Amino acid sequence: MNKIVECVPNYSISTDREGLEKITAPFKERDDVRLISVEPDENYNRTVVTVIGAPESVKEAMVASAKVASEVIDMRKHSGEHKRMGAIDVVPFIPIKDMTIEETITLSEECAEAIYTATNIPVFLYNLSAKRPQCEKLPDIRKGEFEGMAEKLKDPYWQPDFGKEVHPTAGVTAVGCRPLLVAFNIDLDTNDKKIASAIAKAIRFSSGGYRYVQAGPAYLEDKDIVQVTMNVTDYKKTSVYRVFETVKMEARRYDVDVIGSEFIGLVDLDCLKDITSYYLKKASKDDVDLSLEEVTEVVKDHLLLHGFDKKKVIEYYV
Amino acid sequence: MNKIVECVPNYSISTDREGLEKITAPFKERDDVRLISVEPDENYNRTVVTVIGAPESVKEAMVASAKVASEVIDMRKHSGEHKRMGAIDVVPFIPIKDMTIEETITLSEECAEAIYTATNIPVFLYNLSAKRPQCEKLPDIRKGEFEGMAEKLKDPYWQPDFGKEVHPTAGVTAVGCRPLLVAFNIDLDTNDKKIASAIAKAIRFSSGGYRYVQAGPAYLEDKDIVQVTMNVTDYKKTSVYRVFETVKMEARRYDVDVIGSEFIGLVDLDCLKDITSYYLKKASKDDVDLSLEEVTEVVKDHLLLHGFDKKKVIEYYV
Repeated sequence: MNKIVECVPNYSISTDREGLEKITAPFKERDDVRLISVEPDENYNRTVVTVIGAPESVKEAMVASAKVASEVIDMRKHSGEHKRMGAIDVVPFIPIKDMTIEETITLSEECAEAIYTATNIPVFLYNLSAKRPQCEKLPDIRKGEFEGMAEKLKDPYWQPDFGKEVHPTAGVTAVGCRPLLVAFNIDLDTNDKKIASAIAKAIRFSSGGYRYVQAGPAYLEDKDIVQVTMNVTDYKKTSVYRVFETVKMEARRYDVDVIGSEFIGLVDLDCLKDITSYYLKKASKDDVDLSLEEVTEVVKDHLLLHGFDKKKVIEYYV
Repeated sequence: MNKIVECVPNYSISTDREGLEKITAPFKERDDVRLISVEPDENYNRTVVTVIGAPESVKEAMVASAKVASEVIDMRKHSGEHKRMGAIDVVPFIPIKDMTIEETITLSEECAEAIYTATNIPVFLYNLSAKRPQCEKLPDIRKGEFEGMAEKLKDPYWQPDFGKEVHPTAGVTAVGCRPLLVAFNIDLDTNDKKIASAIAKAIRFSSGGYRYVQAGPAYLEDKDIVQVTMNVTDYKKTSVYRVFETVKMEARRYDVDVIGSEFIGLVDLDCLKDITSYYLKKASKDDVDLSLEEVTEVVKDHLLLHGFDKKKVIEYYV
């Protein structure tokens, strides 16, 4: 493989495993497309699929999958905790290797048009692919959800980039390029959400924290603990270890321990090397001369990661 | 006193103590103006004066002082390491108590006009008082320095807000309102400037650090150590203790200790209470029920401050 793109479509389906099989089948039929994970969440009634591969092939498989999803999922019968506006709720493309943001935007535009042509689902171009400021943020597009979309689309301000009228059973979709980010959650040894909120506030940009951190609190019912949940949108500038250590430092104020952490989705090796360089006291990540497996172990140990192994690393597949 | 403003004029003079006596005399003649400090730096050939008091009186004393300085200082004979453009190089006003930014801007405008009227020195309104984007940053105005000002002012783009032609011996001046900021330096147990640079990069906003931190490295010749020197422009959002602890955390990577720190200029009690609350494990600064002296001691101990006592705290004078 040469150029590599990641695609992380979200489908409004979870318990219907047969339907999911059909929807994900197009990602299994090509040599240059790899289906990394299928993660259904019944609470959200939503499934996040992660795929990487050659740009053209990923795009074509994505269009084929969207076509199946538009036939399998009926939004009129859908409910779940997560806000949603369509059967294929959102299709983010992320440049991984030898791809520029511009090339990824072009790919997302082609995919958006092809999905509309194949399914008649109207499509918004969002995030870095947005043509209008109101389409940059997904929550703004999604506002009103499936049930409110017919009314919303009557407003010329909310005219989709492709198509005009809501698909009666599959709603609308957003497709776009987003930069590679690190989705990272840190577990605290407490169930006090106020503490997670205060720590999130200390680290996130919007309230005076690190420039490339978005963060908030979350409560995990099964473990009865709280998390600081975050996106690090540019780990090259705001290092993940720095954020992790700052959370530990803030937690000390409450006599609370950090007891674990997790990466959501794939992480790239360069990010892991950056983390490794701090804990091994190297001046720079370029001084880290370890294998993918070794780097994975160092990071896992120091960040107290759970559910983490080399299969979460992009380079494992490349 | 009711409304309190701080004024920190910088004069292009240092060794001429008699001249300095005359220049600072107007700050000693009023009951409602307090001369806090006079800090000449021979290397820079520059003196920083700190004054607080009632706004009208501080302004009038400032104008009187500028008048003396314009007579005492001859910029044609001035040299020093710090960049400078006039005898009264810059006059920042900072709102301290019961004053809004807007009121302080108005005060700075009145002061600027009065200085021009009294001395014939042309004045730029800078920082928050700037009327044009090119005048927001002092280094932009100062570029070309005293020697280049006559040429620079021919360009309508660089027309001063008051006056037109450079004063032959006193150059030009900038007057403006700036927000209260914390100027803070952290000493490292090394003379390796690369380490101070790397740590400064980790904490400053421009390269991915904290939103309200500007930072860089500095070498202290007398102590043969390096410092991370910084401005925390909004300590209510980016806490000073957080920045201090992050510097310690980053220094660990290089096996370097933080061995001291210092505040430059005055700090307000609220900022010190915020720092205290972290080290005493209080949820908020409002839970810190200590006297000014006690808070000063706690902060001094934990931040390893040198040259710090209650006389560096604004509330000591208010």
